[in-house]
Amino acid sequence: MIVVMKPEASNEDVKHVVNLVNDFGLKENIIYGTDRTVIACIGDKRHVEKGAIENAGNVEKVVPILAPYKLASREVVKEKTAIEIGPEKFPLGGNRVGVIAGPCAVEDLDQVLKTAEKVKEAGCIGLRGGAFKPRTSPYSFQGLKYEGLEILAKAREETGLAVVTEVVSLDNVEAVAEFADVLQVGARNMQHYPLLEALGKVNKPILLKRGLCSRLDEFLLAAEYIINAGNKQVILCERGIRTYEEYVRNTLPLASIPALNERTHLPIVVDPSHGTGHSYMVPAMCRAAVAAGADGLLVECHLDPEHALSDGAQSITPEGLTEMVKSVTKIAETLGRTL
Amino acid sequence: MIVVMKPEASNEDVKHVVNLVNDFGLKENIIYGTDRTVIACIGDKRHVEKGAIENAGNVEKVVPILAPYKLASREVVKEKTAIEIGPEKFPLGGNRVGVIAGPCAVEDLDQVLKTAEKVKEAGCIGLRGGAFKPRTSPYSFQGLKYEGLEILAKAREETGLAVVTEVVSLDNVEAVAEFADVLQVGARNMQHYPLLEALGKVNKPILLKRGLCSRLDEFLLAAEYIINAGNKQVILCERGIRTYEEYVRNTLPLASIPALNERTHLPIVVDPSHGTGHSYMVPAMCRAAVAAGADGLLVECHLDPEHALSDGAQSITPEGLTEMVKSVTKIAETLGRTL
Amino acid sequence: MIVVMKPEASNEDVKHVVNLVNDFGLKENIIYGTDRTVIACIGDKRHVEKGAIENAGNVEKVVPILAPYKLASREVVKEKTAIEIGPEKFPLGGNRVGVIAGPCAVEDLDQVLKTAEKVKEAGCIGLRGGAFKPRTSPYSFQGLKYEGLEILAKAREETGLAVVTEVVSLDNVEAVAEFADVLQVGARNMQHYPLLEALGKVNKPILLKRGLCSRLDEFLLAAEYIINAGNKQVILCERGIRTYEEYVRNTLPLASIPALNERTHLPIVVDPSHGTGHSYMVPAMCRAAVAAGADGLLVECHLDPEHALSDGAQSITPEGLTEMVKSVTKIAETLGRTL
Amino acid sequence: MIVVMKPEASNEDVKHVVNLVNDFGLKENIIYGTDRTVIACIGDKRHVEKGAIENAGNVEKVVPILAPYKLASREVVKEKTAIEIGPEKFPLGGNRVGVIAGPCAVEDLDQVLKTAEKVKEAGCIGLRGGAFKPRTSPYSFQGLKYEGLEILAKAREETGLAVVTEVVSLDNVEAVAEFADVLQVGARNMQHYPLLEALGKVNKPILLKRGLCSRLDEFLLAAEYIINAGNKQVILCERGIRTYEEYVRNTLPLASIPALNERTHLPIVVDPSHGTGHSYMVPAMCRAAVAAGADGLLVECHLDPEHALSDGAQSITPEGLTEMVKSVTKIAETLGRTL
Repeated sequence: MIVVMKPEASNEDVKHVVNLVNDFGLKENIIYGTDRTVIACIGDKRHVEKGAIENAGNVEKVVPILAPYKLASREVVKEKTAIEIGPEKFPLGGNRVGVIAGPCAVEDLDQVLKTAEKVKEAGCIGLRGGAFKPRTSPYSFQGLKYEGLEILAKAREETGLAVVTEVVSLDNVEAVAEFADVLQVGARNMQHYPLLEALGKVNKPILLKRGLCSRLDEFLLAAEYIINAGNKQVILCERGIRTYEEYVRNTLPLASIPALNERTHLPIVVDPSHGTGHSYMVPAMCRAAVAAGADGLLVECHLDPEHALSDGAQSITPEGLTEMVKSVTKIAETLGRTL
Repeated sequence: MIVVMKPEASNEDVKHVVNLVNDFGLKENIIYGTDRTVIACIGDKRHVEKGAIENAGNVEKVVPILAPYKLASREVVKEKTAIEIGPEKFPLGGNRVGVIAGPCAVEDLDQVLKTAEKVKEAGCIGLRGGAFKPRTSPYSFQGLKYEGLEILAKAREETGLAVVTEVVSLDNVEAVAEFADVLQVGARNMQHYPLLEALGKVNKPILLKRGLCSRLDEFLLAAEYIINAGNKQVILCERGIRTYEEYVRNTLPLASIPALNERTHLPIVVDPSHGTGHSYMVPAMCRAAVAAGADGLLVECHLDPEHALSDGAQSITPEGLTEMVKSVTKIAETLGRTL
Repeated sequence: MIVVMKPEASNEDVKHVVNLVNDFGLKENIIYGTDRTVIACIGDKRHVEKGAIENAGNVEKVVPILAPYKLASREVVKEKTAIEIGPEKFPLGGNRVGVIAGPCAVEDLDQVLKTAEKVKEAGCIGLRGGAFKPRTSPYSFQGLKYEGLEILAKAREETGLAVVTEVVSLDNVEAVAEFADVLQVGARNMQHYPLLEALGKVNKPILLKRGLCSRLDEFLLAAEYIINAGNKQVILCERGIRTYEEYVRNTLPLASIPALNERTHLPIVVDPSHGTGHSYMVPAMCRAAVAAGADGLLVECHLDPEHALSDGAQSITPEGLTEMVKSVTKIAETLGRTL
Repeated sequence: MIVVMKPEASNEDVKHVVNLVNDFGLKENIIYGTDRTVIACIGDKRHVEKGAIENAGNVEKVVPILAPYKLASREVVKEKTAIEIGPEKFPLGGNRVGVIAGPCAVEDLDQVLKTAEKVKEAGCIGLRGGAFKPRTSPYSFQGLKYEGLEILAKAREETGLAVVTEVVSLDNVEAVAEFADVLQVGARNMQHYPLLEALGKVNKPILLKRGLCSRLDEFLLAAEYIINAGNKQVILCERGIRTYEEYVRNTLPLASIPALNERTHLPIVVDPSHGTGHSYMVPAMCRAAVAAGADGLLVECHLDPEHALSDGAQSITPEGLTEMVKSVTKIAETLGRTL
């Protein structure tokens, strides 16, 4: 942490800050510059309430130096982590790229079984589908809940696909953990810390979606919550952020892939369905994500998108999925990876 | 809802969409324009999965016409709602403007009692303070939890101030509801729907903070969740949104006050502490919020901001609070309101 | 400037950066922290190409310490600057608050004279109106150009109001400077540096609008361009920024007022018409701007907004203007200011 | 255009709007819905001042239906346009993907010739380099200006590369048009309409960069300005937008590629250097851009990025360029394209 003093700061002001810094268990190193004095604070305490120092007299700003996360960082784990998912223990985060596809919401058994078959045939490794649906409106379809979980489990039995499904609140962690292979934390829950802590006690991989407007630090700190509570199997999922752009549901910032790869050892999956909101853009963004280095894709696929109970606009058909997987396979190969 | 067809749409395409629209229980009205055909869909179903229609052939876009919320809207309740809070039943949302102040986190009994006294003296109507603290980092101070609730209750006893405190997850709704006068939903929980539904069963006012990048529709739909579940006492709190701006913690968009007043009957409170992140900006933005028509203010105030366990950078001192309330009182008076 | 090295940086890496820093004419101060080494760079060169150092081996990031502007800053000019505008030399930036109002575009002589009269009666100090109109679409009304300037001058003659009008490109600087009392630089031209430099040679006040998504540093550097080229009379105008918000044309971040007042001595005017885009929000945001400390307001006012040739949605009527000025006057008085 | 009335609108209000609409030369079609009345306005006038209608009594909102651009749209030109650039008439926008590389700024003859050689060897089709540099700070290196243009021309002579360089203001259009093969409009000038109009008179391709926070409509309207003024050779360049993200200089939204391809026939180039701001991210984003369907890349490449006079942090080395082109070639081939 660096404390920058205002030009008018007196020796007394500097001394006052040094005392504060020492109170926090840090050692000071004062640098007298041409225009202003700067106090570098040395120590390994990442979580001092730094902001508080801003309130001291004639402090201009406080600049953090260390990343606030540790367990999720490359500094602690140098090698990329591969996480095994599903009955076939697909190693997500290794050399292979895994595609997970399925409907936004579990609508009924027949739909899910038919979709799962198509998803399997297309060469995917996982089936996604929401049993508990967090919906913006209280009047929208809220999911089949526990019944949905059983339907997903049946689809796994028949296809061997890993089941990826969302857990929306503390009171269904146990049920979801029983049925799912990967527990998904939705974007709106990325900073629901009690949930993250509960998932730290679960012995299954967690797919953590980036919050709608989260910074990378916040994203990695959310992962840190889960790891710190005991579960190292965290998969990060970029799903787009909210910006002023009007032609997409969200803006999908693929530079987060190299940026995350630089900072963390955790595998990175991209969701171009939520990341764009329109099915016609999904294949292009799947290709782009893999070209940028994604370890996996999470894609919404519906047998009949026009009648989907949710997210119809962004769901591709099974035919679209098959074609996309082919195209993505070729791109992965140019990078020395396989699907 | 309006469905806009692409210029190349055939009669078949239009017919196909009309069938879809009818499936959803809506009646169509086809308008043949100069450049393209538009299908106006008539009916009172607000929550049709409109997006799905985008996937039909040669549909260009689907434009919603109706606001998606009802109970929170001015259409249903024409008059502004006043909500009584605290032991003194202060009517928030009426002609009086109410200020709620206190530390970000409850740190200990002594701190809270002393602060409460100052807050009362300054002319405020409520005491804010977090017992359960959602923190971005798992290594930061997480609050005193249940002990914190008891401390707040003691402060109410001694001062008569309404206690406003955050409920962070399903499993502490009951405890918070027992001790607090107003239950706060934090920005990060604005779309945690299971929590909103649980708060719909509580018989106390809810202060609902706007999500970090929520649209007004989403904000009002979050309120709708609570009202729809049975609790009409919802107070909206504007606390700033995330933008590219670098000199503030959040950008405080005060135009949301007239915009919300146009759309909803619910009272509106502004939090300039989170809305700016820097104590030196807080008084100016308190004044601006009241000038723009806010019904109340929520302000972080700490006896010793330099040593605050959280949010020190944005906390004003009791002296700053007193001065701010004086200034805000004068502004309220120019608008025919009182504190 | 602070250079933060990666944890794996060797002594060689540090030495390499020190050499680079010395090449730039800066002195180094190396701080060996617990987790990483940091190099503080001392010297008064504000405009070293700092980014380049990021490319050196094992550099994690480069953090600037000094603000990049000088002439516009409070460090150089401690007292707030008041700039005299118009035939009546109204001192904008002093204790008085000045309101400038008028149509978006000059449409014809009759319109402008009638509007000017109303604007004067309402207690304003300036008349705004575009002769040269930068329009998003090539098919929209582009302004009366030189004829418009003459119309504005006539209105000044009759009312004594200061004429504020936009200069849109290098080739009409001279003409606008001849007719206008204040030359406005539009948001889209805030970083059109050749224009800023040309305005540095003009001996009239410049009203510089904040760019649609400019940072405060960029805004103040644009002012710096003008001052550095010879013209100290720069008025800053906050007119809103682009965000994801959908209920406004722009998000008006009034915290920029205290933030700018902390950083610069230049007067600050707010434009709530562009800052919201909807006439019904304008009066509330005018009040808020003055409450937050604005030195002036720039407001679109049209005799018949429904038929305005541009910006009709955000124009208030003369009656609305009169009422707004009254309300704003009272608020200014509570802050010890007058109109 | 659709005018949505408020629920409380009377017949008189509707009639009043119908009259306004007719005044604008549009025919009305009134739809009486369950909750509100909607007026569909029919006609081919794209540039009515629609906003003005918002000011009529009891109008809730005005929703545009038609895209505001025409000449740039796929409706008018169904086939994708290929634009020939440089002495070798490379057809940008056809089946081949073209890479343009070079330093941010022209620094001296030797630098440019050496770089051009490397750029040619790597398999690129164009050389970029700024002679006129728009810089955020008046104290930064402003470019070699006319001398820079001559240096670039010499490099073309020696390599046959197309020269792409920026024109920053009206007064150097002629000079740049004389020396360059492609005239670049910078992001900050995307809405400098007088410049766009001047470029409409030039008989060379224009590379138009997307504004820092422009919408696609605004981007295409800027292209429309150039085409409408007489020059059909417009190349669109996505270079990232400003968002709250902190780990990049700009957020690069690659979904704009399929979105633009849907709306316009113009070729699309991506600039991952400005689009990320950090050289380590550039190769991944080059691959992603081509995978998403870009017709070309614009990349900053410097012989010695640590000593670059501008944009050093985002410049890759010639070795990095060579490797990137190889990788991108393979990806293009999977899509049936060549470099």
